Amino acid sequence: MKAFMDRDFLLETDTARKLYHEYAAKMPIVDYHCHIDPKQIAEDKKFENITQIWLGGDHYKWRQMRSNGVEEKYITGDAPDCEKFQKWAETLEKAIGNPLYHWSHLELQRYFGYDGVLNGETAEEVWNLCNAKLQEAGMSARNLIRQSNVTLLCTTDDPADCLVWHEELAADDHFEVQVLPAWRPDRAMNLEKPDYPEYLKKLEHVSGVQIDSFAALMEALRIRMEYFAQRGCVVSDHGLEYVMYVPAADEEIEAIFHKRLLGETVSRQEELQFKTACMVALGREYHKRNWVMQLHYGVRRDNNRAIFRALGPDAGIDCINNYAPSAEMAEYLNALASTDELPKTILYSLNPVDNAAIGTIIGCFQSEEARGKIQQGSAWWFNDHKQGMIDQMTSLANLGLLGNFIGMLTDSRSFLSYTRHEYFRRIMCNLIGGWVENGEYPADEKVLGRMVQDICYNNAVRYFGFQL
Amino acid sequence: MKAFMDRDFLLETDTARKLYHEYAAKMPIVDYHCHIDPKQIAEDKKFENITQIWLGGDHYKWRQMRSNGVEEKYITGDAPDCEKFQKWAETLEKAIGNPLYHWSHLELQRYFGYDGVLNGETAEEVWNLCNAKLQEAGMSARNLIRQSNVTLLCTTDDPADCLVWHEELAADDHFEVQVLPAWRPDRAMNLEKPDYPEYLKKLEHVSGVQIDSFAALMEALRIRMEYFAQRGCVVSDHGLEYVMYVPAADEEIEAIFHKRLLGETVSRQEELQFKTACMVALGREYHKRNWVMQLHYGVRRDNNRAIFRALGPDAGIDCINNYAPSAEMAEYLNALASTDELPKTILYSLNPVDNAAIGTIIGCFQSEEARGKIQQGSAWWFNDHKQGMIDQMTSLANLGLLGNFIGMLTDSRSFLSYTRHEYFRRIMCNLIGGWVENGEYPADEKVLGRMVQDICYNNAVRYFGFQL
Amino acid sequence: MKAFMDRDFLLETDTARKLYHEYAAKMPIVDYHCHIDPKQIAEDKKFENITQIWLGGDHYKWRQMRSNGVEEKYITGDAPDCEKFQKWAETLEKAIGNPLYHWSHLELQRYFGYDGVLNGETAEEVWNLCNAKLQEAGMSARNLIRQSNVTLLCTTDDPADCLVWHEELAADDHFEVQVLPAWRPDRAMNLEKPDYPEYLKKLEHVSGVQIDSFAALMEALRIRMEYFAQRGCVVSDHGLEYVMYVPAADEEIEAIFHKRLLGETVSRQEELQFKTACMVALGREYHKRNWVMQLHYGVRRDNNRAIFRALGPDAGIDCINNYAPSAEMAEYLNALASTDELPKTILYSLNPVDNAAIGTIIGCFQSEEARGKIQQGSAWWFNDHKQGMIDQMTSLANLGLLGNFIGMLTDSRSFLSYTRHEYFRRIMCNLIGGWVENGEYPADEKVLGRMVQDICYNNAVRYFGFQL
Repeated sequence: MKAFMDRDFLLETDTARKLYHEYAAKMPIVDYHCHIDPKQIAEDKKFENITQIWLGGDHYKWRQMRSNGVEEKYITGDAPDCEKFQKWAETLEKAIGNPLYHWSHLELQRYFGYDGVLNGETAEEVWNLCNAKLQEAGMSARNLIRQSNVTLLCTTDDPADCLVWHEELAADDHFEVQVLPAWRPDRAMNLEKPDYPEYLKKLEHVSGVQIDSFAALMEALRIRMEYFAQRGCVVSDHGLEYVMYVPAADEEIEAIFHKRLLGETVSRQEELQFKTACMVALGREYHKRNWVMQLHYGVRRDNNRAIFRALGPDAGIDCINNYAPSAEMAEYLNALASTDELPKTILYSLNPVDNAAIGTIIGCFQSEEARGKIQQGSAWWFNDHKQGMIDQMTSLANLGLLGNFIGMLTDSRSFLSYTRHEYFRRIMCNLIGGWVENGEYPADEKVLGRMVQDICYNNAVRYFGFQL
Repeated sequence: MKAFMDRDFLLETDTARKLYHEYAAKMPIVDYHCHIDPKQIAEDKKFENITQIWLGGDHYKWRQMRSNGVEEKYITGDAPDCEKFQKWAETLEKAIGNPLYHWSHLELQRYFGYDGVLNGETAEEVWNLCNAKLQEAGMSARNLIRQSNVTLLCTTDDPADCLVWHEELAADDHFEVQVLPAWRPDRAMNLEKPDYPEYLKKLEHVSGVQIDSFAALMEALRIRMEYFAQRGCVVSDHGLEYVMYVPAADEEIEAIFHKRLLGETVSRQEELQFKTACMVALGREYHKRNWVMQLHYGVRRDNNRAIFRALGPDAGIDCINNYAPSAEMAEYLNALASTDELPKTILYSLNPVDNAAIGTIIGCFQSEEARGKIQQGSAWWFNDHKQGMIDQMTSLANLGLLGNFIGMLTDSRSFLSYTRHEYFRRIMCNLIGGWVENGEYPADEKVLGRMVQDICYNNAVRYFGFQL
Repeated sequence: MKAFMDRDFLLETDTARKLYHEYAAKMPIVDYHCHIDPKQIAEDKKFENITQIWLGGDHYKWRQMRSNGVEEKYITGDAPDCEKFQKWAETLEKAIGNPLYHWSHLELQRYFGYDGVLNGETAEEVWNLCNAKLQEAGMSARNLIRQSNVTLLCTTDDPADCLVWHEELAADDHFEVQVLPAWRPDRAMNLEKPDYPEYLKKLEHVSGVQIDSFAALMEALRIRMEYFAQRGCVVSDHGLEYVMYVPAADEEIEAIFHKRLLGETVSRQEELQFKTACMVALGREYHKRNWVMQLHYGVRRDNNRAIFRALGPDAGIDCINNYAPSAEMAEYLNALASTDELPKTILYSLNPVDNAAIGTIIGCFQSEEARGKIQQGSAWWFNDHKQGMIDQMTSLANLGLLGNFIGMLTDSRSFLSYTRHEYFRRIMCNLIGGWVENGEYPADEKVLGRMVQDICYNNAVRYFGFQL
C-alpha cells in the first residue's frame, strides 16, 4: 500500500516518478487563466485565517458543505470562521475520491507544512496551525505566488474594467512575476440580461464611444482591446452556454441591438444571432492582434434561483448544460477560417462527454499558423479531477498530438491553488509513464523529459507568445 | 490468476477484501426499490423450477437469448421449461463481461450451493440440482428474503392499486421483514396513452373523486397518497422519457386535460405541459409528506412494436432515450426549490453519459434539510454492471460526497436478485480500497469501515426515515 | 517495464498472451469493409516510396501534420516525397498515445522488418529502408494482401460504379483472395448536394432507367443491386449524419423528388423525409436479398470549407456530429421490423458517447433470423484506438453478447492497414484475458480459444454468409 499522499502521490511507475521528480516538478508555472483579484497582489494581501482564504469565495467547497446538510450560516453566513472551518473539515471526510480532498491536503502540505489528515477531529489543530502560519511574511499574496514558482499569471477582466492594478504591478520593481490582464467580454454580449443597458453605459464611459449601434459597440470594444493590449493582454476568454452559430445579415443584427436599446424584448433566436455576430466580429479582432481565443462552454449558471437571489452569481449553483451541438461549433470556426481570420483557439467544455467531439473538431482547423493552433483546453472546472484529466489527455492523445498540449491552468480565485498544477503534472506524468512502461511508447528519457516539460510550461509560453 | 468468482470475487487489494468481508458483507439489506409482487410474499410463493424463477419475467435474459438467435418459443413461448433453460445456458456462455453472467453464478452459489459453471454442457445437471433445491422449505419467497438478510423492501405500486397484500403482511406476525408500498403514478400522468380514460375510471373508483378536471385528478391522487402513507409509503417513483419542464398557466393545463377527456388529440407540446404540471404538483405533495421523489429517466419503451403487440410492455424492447436536456431538469428542480417545496430527490438516468450532468445538478439543490438531500441514484438498469457502477460512483465522488451515497437497489422482480447488493458492495469496496491502496485517501479503518457500512445500509435507512 | 512494441505488445497477462499467440494470431482476416481501389489490386500495383503509400491519401496523417503546424505543401502539396516523410516523422514523435503511432510502427515491423523507432532523427534511415523494400516483389498490392493472410475483402462502391475490376479479379486464377464489391448508395440519397442531377444522369445511364420519379430511382437502384449481387455483393453501407426517421406519404416523397428534379430548393425537413423514404425502401431490399446493412453515422463532413475547396472531400476535415437522437434510430429499425423486413444490421457511431444507446437499441431488434442479427460495429474511424476499442467491447459485453461480435474491419485505403486487425486482436485478447485473470469468467481454454477465434474471423464469415 502506498502511504497517503506522500512524495510519490499518484505516481505508480518508475517512469512516472522519474518524469515527475526529475522533469516536471522543477518547471515554473505560467498560469494563463485565473480569477485572482489583481488588487490583492498589488496590495500584497495577507489573510487572517484559513477560512478566509479557503471558504471566502470558493463555491466548489460551498457545494460540498450543502451536500453534507450543513446550514447555510456556516457556509456563506455569519457563523464564526472557526466554526465554518470545523464544518468544512467534517464535510471533507466524506469527500473520498473528490479533488477537493487532494487539493486541500496538497495545500496543507505545501504551504502550511501539515502532513496529517484534516477531518472533524483534527480541525482545531489545523485551524491553529494554519492561522499561525498565515501570520508569517512568506504567506502574503506575492510570496505565495513566488514560492509557487509562478513566472506569469493572467487575471480575468471585463472590457470596462480599469486596469490600474495591472499598471501598478507592471511599474513595481519589487515584484518580478508578470501579472497580465485577460479580456472577458461576456457582459458586452449578454444582451438578454436585465442590467445590459447599465453595462453599456459603463462601457460608453470608459471607451468614450456612444453605443447607439452594434457597429458602435464593436468600436467601443476595439478601443478597449487596444487599452488591454497596451497593458500586455494577449488572451481573451468567453463563457458560453454553448458555441452557437446562427448567422444573420448586418442589418438584422443592428435591428436586434436597436430593439434591445429601446427596452423591447429580444427573442431567443435574436439573442443567438446577436451573440453569433459578436463572436465572429471579436474572433476576427483576436486574429488581427494574434490574441488567443478561449471558449469555455457547456455551462448553465445560477440554477437555484433562491440561492442566486440571496448570494448572486458564483454561489455554487451552476451545472452542465448538455445542449452543445458540435455542428454549430464547427460552423463558427469555419466562419472565421474561411476568410483566414481564425485566431489561435482553445476549446473547453464543462461536459466531459464532449471530449471526443472537441478532439475531432480541433483537427479540422489546425494550420501552419501555429503548432497546435487549435487546442482542447485542460479538464475544466467540474472536470479537474484525476479521472477528468486522464480522460481529457487520453482523448487528446487518441485524436491529436498530446506533445503539443499547452497544459494546466488554475481557474481559481485563491493564492493556494497552484498545487493544482502539481496535481495535473503528477497525473500527466503517471499517464505518460504508464504508456511507456506498457511498451506503448519508447523509453527514451530525452524525448519524454522534453515532452513533459513542454506540456508543463514551454508549450504555453510559446503558444501565447509570453515574453519571459 | 484469481479463481473464478471465489470468496474474493472483484476484490483486488487487501483493503478491498478487508472492507468487504469485515464491514460490508455483514450489513443487512434495505431494498428501497423493487418490482416484487407483494402477493407472492404474502402467499409465501414457492417455485417449481429454475426456469420459472429465472426466465418467467426477466426481460434482461430474454434480450440476450434473442441476441443469440434463440427462437421466441424458447424465450416467452410454450417450449418446455427444461428446454428453455438449456437455451439460456447456451446463451450465457457467450455473455462474457455481462452482469447476467455474474448475477446468475452468484445466485447459483448463494441460493443453490452450486459453485460450478453454467453452460450448455452443465445445464441439465444445474437444472436438476436447482429444482431439487427449490422444493426445500428454505426456498420460499419469504425464506429467500430472510436468508438474504433483508430488513425492509419497497414494492412498486400504482395509485389505483389496492394495498391489501401490504396490509396482510403488516398484520402477519410470522414475517418480520417490512414490506412497504412505493407510489408510482406514471399512468395518472401519461395522458397520451390510449387507455388513459380507462385508467381514470379506475382511479375515480378507488378515490371516490369524480375526475373531471386537473384539480380533481390531483385531489384523487392526494387521497390515494394518504391511503399509501397510512400503509407506510415514504417513497415515490416516476419513469420518464426525460425530466421535462414546459410550464403553462393553470387554465391551460385544465384546457389540455379537458381536451383529453373529450377524446380529442393532445399535441406533444400539450403533453409536456401537462406532465410538467403533474410533476410540479406531485413534487410539492412529496415535500409536504417528507416522501422521497425518485426520477428514473432516459428511457424509450416498447421500441419493437411487433414484440410489443405480442407480449406487451417489459418484454426486453426498451432502449436509452438520449434526449434529456439538463437545462429542463434544472428548471424543474428550481421550480420546486424556489418555493422551498423541493422534496428529497433521487435522479437516475438510463444513459451513463448523463452521469456528470446529474452530478453537477444535484450540487445546485442540496440544502440543510437533509444530508445528501439530492442524490444521484445507483447505476440503473442497463448500467448495473461493474463498469456502470464504477463510473457512477467515480462520477459521484468526483463531483459530490460519496460518503453520503444511499447505495444500491435491486429494481428486480425476482427473489434471488439480492445478490445484486453483494455485487455492488464488492465493486464499491474494491473502488474505495483501490483509492486507499494508491495513497489517495488515508488508510483509517475506522473511518473507512463506517463509510462502507453507511453506503451499504445506514445512509438509506436514515435518508428515507425507515423505522427499523 | 515492457519493451517497446515487442512480441507481447498490449498483452498484459498470461491468459492474454496465450489467447493472442495461440488462437488469435493464426486466424485469417476477412476485411468486410475497406476503401481499397480494386483497380490497384487488379493491376497488382507497386509503390515507389513510403510517402506514396503512407501519405498519398491518408487524411488521418494529414490532420496530425497540420496539428504540428506543418506547412500544407509538405502534406498535400508539391514538396518532394522525402521531405514530406521527414515532416511526418517529426510529427509522429508528438503522437504519444495515438493509434497512428502504433499503426505506423506495426506496419514498419510487419511489412518492412524495421523494429526501431521512427522520428525526425531516424526518418532518413527509415525512408531508405522502406523504399528499398518496396522494390521487392512481395510488396505489391496482391502480395501485401496475401502475406496479411486475408481470405476476402469488400471494397466500397457506388451504385453507378462499373464493377469491371471485380469481374477481372474474380476471373483471375492467379489471385486466390476474394474481392467483393459493397454497395454504398450515399450519392443516390443526397439530394441536397449540388451535383445530384449529374449523379442521377450517371445512374440513369448505367441502369437504363429514366429516373423521373422516386419510384424510378428505386427501380434503377434495384437493377444495380442485381448487378452488384451477381458480382458477389452481400453488404451495403450508408454514411449518415445521423439515423433519421421522418416518415411521409409516398406522394409527398414523390413531390419532394419532383421538386428537386425541377431544380427547386428542398427544405431540411423534406431532405430528411426523402432520406427516410430511401432508407426504408433500401432496408427492405437488403432484407429481401439477405444483405447486411451497415449504418455509419455521427459524422459531419468537410467542416473547413477553405480546405474543402482546395482539396475536396476526405481531406482530414471531418468531425463528430453529436446530434443523433436514439429515438429516431429506434423508430427507423422498428419501421422495418414491424413488417418483418429488417435486414441484418450493423450500427456504427463516430461518437463514442453513443455506445450505450446503440447497445440498448440492438437488443430490441434481435431475432431468431440470425445469431447477433443486429450488431454494434467495431470502434470506428476516430475511435479505432486502444481506449475506443476497449470502450466499445466493454459496452457491448455489458449490454449484449460479446461472443457473437463480428469484430474488426480496416476501413482503410492502404494495403498496409491489415495490422489494424492485429491491433484489435491484441486489445481484444487483453480485455478478455484480464477478465479471466480477475476471476470474472472461467479459465476454460477451449471455450475462450473458440470465442476469440470467432470474434477474429468465424463470426463475420458466418454472419455475412461468405463462401470461403
